[in-house]
Amino acid sequence: MITLNEHYFKLQASYLFSDIAARVTSFQKENPEIDVIKLGIGDVTKGLTPTSIAAFHKAVDEMADDATFRGYGPEQGYEFLREAIAVNDFQSRGADISSDEIFVSDGAKCDTGNFQELFTSDITIAIPDPVYPVYLDTNVMAGRTGEFADGRYRGVVYLESTRENNFVPDLPEDKVDLIYLCFPNNPTGSTISKTELKNWVDYARDHKALILFDAAYESFIRDDSLPKTIYEVEGAREVAVEFRSFSKNAGFTGTRCAYTVVPKECRAYDGKGNIQHIHSLWHRRHCTKFNGVSYPVQRAAEATYSEEGKKETRALVDYYMRNADAVCDTFRSLNYEFAGGENSPYIWIDGKRDSWEFFDMLLRETGVVCTPGGGFGKCGNQYIRISAFNSYENVQTAMTRLTEKLK
Amino acid sequence: MITLNEHYFKLQASYLFSDIAARVTSFQKENPEIDVIKLGIGDVTKGLTPTSIAAFHKAVDEMADDATFRGYGPEQGYEFLREAIAVNDFQSRGADISSDEIFVSDGAKCDTGNFQELFTSDITIAIPDPVYPVYLDTNVMAGRTGEFADGRYRGVVYLESTRENNFVPDLPEDKVDLIYLCFPNNPTGSTISKTELKNWVDYARDHKALILFDAAYESFIRDDSLPKTIYEVEGAREVAVEFRSFSKNAGFTGTRCAYTVVPKECRAYDGKGNIQHIHSLWHRRHCTKFNGVSYPVQRAAEATYSEEGKKETRALVDYYMRNADAVCDTFRSLNYEFAGGENSPYIWIDGKRDSWEFFDMLLRETGVVCTPGGGFGKCGNQYIRISAFNSYENVQTAMTRLTEKLK
Repeated sequence: MITLNEHYFKLQASYLFSDIAARVTSFQKENPEIDVIKLGIGDVTKGLTPTSIAAFHKAVDEMADDATFRGYGPEQGYEFLREAIAVNDFQSRGADISSDEIFVSDGAKCDTGNFQELFTSDITIAIPDPVYPVYLDTNVMAGRTGEFADGRYRGVVYLESTRENNFVPDLPEDKVDLIYLCFPNNPTGSTISKTELKNWVDYARDHKALILFDAAYESFIRDDSLPKTIYEVEGAREVAVEFRSFSKNAGFTGTRCAYTVVPKECRAYDGKGNIQHIHSLWHRRHCTKFNGVSYPVQRAAEATYSEEGKKETRALVDYYMRNADAVCDTFRSLNYEFAGGENSPYIWIDGKRDSWEFFDMLLRETGVVCTPGGGFGKCGNQYIRISAFNSYENVQTAMTRLTEKLK
Repeated sequence: MITLNEHYFKLQASYLFSDIAARVTSFQKENPEIDVIKLGIGDVTKGLTPTSIAAFHKAVDEMADDATFRGYGPEQGYEFLREAIAVNDFQSRGADISSDEIFVSDGAKCDTGNFQELFTSDITIAIPDPVYPVYLDTNVMAGRTGEFADGRYRGVVYLESTRENNFVPDLPEDKVDLIYLCFPNNPTGSTISKTELKNWVDYARDHKALILFDAAYESFIRDDSLPKTIYEVEGAREVAVEFRSFSKNAGFTGTRCAYTVVPKECRAYDGKGNIQHIHSLWHRRHCTKFNGVSYPVQRAAEATYSEEGKKETRALVDYYMRNADAVCDTFRSLNYEFAGGENSPYIWIDGKRDSWEFFDMLLRETGVVCTPGGGFGKCGNQYIRISAFNSYENVQTAMTRLTEKLK
């Protein structure tokens, strides 16, 4: 008898963003005259940069000609892209990462979801609250949690991010083995200092733990004293894997390109407690279950590292950060407390009421879509997340409507 | 302590094709004057069709303009592509498959590798021998096998494909729960009749088993009496999932697009033996761990279903099948026994000696790369696989060299 992985049945309702999309669709059907402005899902709205588009077209042309056609590429990604990543995103920051430590993929969602496969199911996981749901759901599917009760899965150590700790969780009191961190944070928009991050790296070293560090939003950091990669922190190479994406900085959400960094020294332990390096295991996993990113997409991603590409990408980020500034100004003037928005495209607003209720009210009465914080965890129950990813004009309109309603 | 999934340590050496690539690279380094002809890995060599290229460019242009830009798409794939698939690949064959039963992905390798996640680790799997290594390796990683000994993993039911059964395995004597089948077969190139396939569907229905049917090579079927999809067989909707790809018919190996069909009635069982439909579980898995295929790639794939696109794709397939005919002619005249090549781009040749030895000899003495059958399983130990994916000129040269050496 073909029996199902019953851990799936522990999962709560549908995936957060599908749930929001369903509510918005139903609202739009009932109110076709209202111009809904989406500041919910963190999806970019501006086109790819001219430099990326030119490289994309050029690579498509290569695919048309037998002489330049490319079939299966290296599963890990083409060297031209991995080298550009290593030099520009790491070595330029003094982080010692080489191209063979980069694994190009089609999304940070896939990578952060898949990485847990390398470990036993009995490890203890530490997950921030609030959190990007993928970290948690993929561990539920893998059987690393108990049942869901009172808003939380049993067996998970939740790292609470609250106003009290400035949305940077304290080190866990209980011993944990696999730690998910994300800075600049989704959903709170908070950042972590190098000193704070060093505490986590030291914790991992002391407790034989591993950190999965999601840096998908690093390009939004404007404060140069903040770490842009965990490998700026001493000792991180042994205890941290980092996830990055071209989605938010270069607008690749619909184009699909990301990467994971697994340093050669990064270690875990076998059943006898012997050190094993995980680079070769992830390599094996990647080669067995993945077949590389579309060649033209890799060329479009590479182009973001050219001089012109960098300028254009920076302009894209600046564009969205002007929106973030507008959102911050609005909620400041409305006397709401919030985090984020300074080095992040997300603004995490204390609505002082149930977050789904606030979400529904905003949708119904202003036509503005946010993300209810409760969807990210218990600590988000009275927060909403507003995203800066939309046109400047739409953000202006949304802020006017919100001011009118909430003043 | 972060402990590793020790099932990974059961995996044998490196992934077959990486292994071959390493041997070829080393040979080329030592013999730079020899023009190596690769008939090993099943990778296409001809460019994408003009219709696909035009659609690809058009979609890249859409990504350049804020007004037509597409961010995150539906994880399951755009309706325009799913509808084209359902109508052209299934409904046109009388197979009742609708667009919401199609899940577009970036590769059949990923899908055939990931699908097993839905099931418990104690089910019994039935895997053909010889076999595409991904089916087996992903189950090893998931802990569904014992140790490797005498060329096989313990706990797996191997479905032997030999000359005696015309390379279509017999129904298993032991009860099995998850059955992997691939027709036209990789690596043997054999096909299955509708009657034989019906026997498997009936077995699955009688034994509460599930069939994972890999139809990545269906476009090479020239004999119209053969089933092109398992859903041509009565009763398959309840017990079969099918995998398809644009890699081999439309040359998408480096472009990346594939899909999986999960009919709404397709069922498995929970721990209490109750029927559960797996469509919703795969949907949840797909939405949680995957973020959709690159939009321009989906447009390029859609274009293969236009009238012009179909003609061009058919011409591509015919081109490779002319190569297959040439390979068959050569080995027939050399008096080798072989299977495949008629409705498949693969020719499975009985070398009557150890397959790695034959591989090395051919590489060294003719500069032709094949795939040693032993890499696909014990039953492949004295076979080699020759692929028709290369230019007609290269295949001609390779066949001349082989004739010279083996006559």
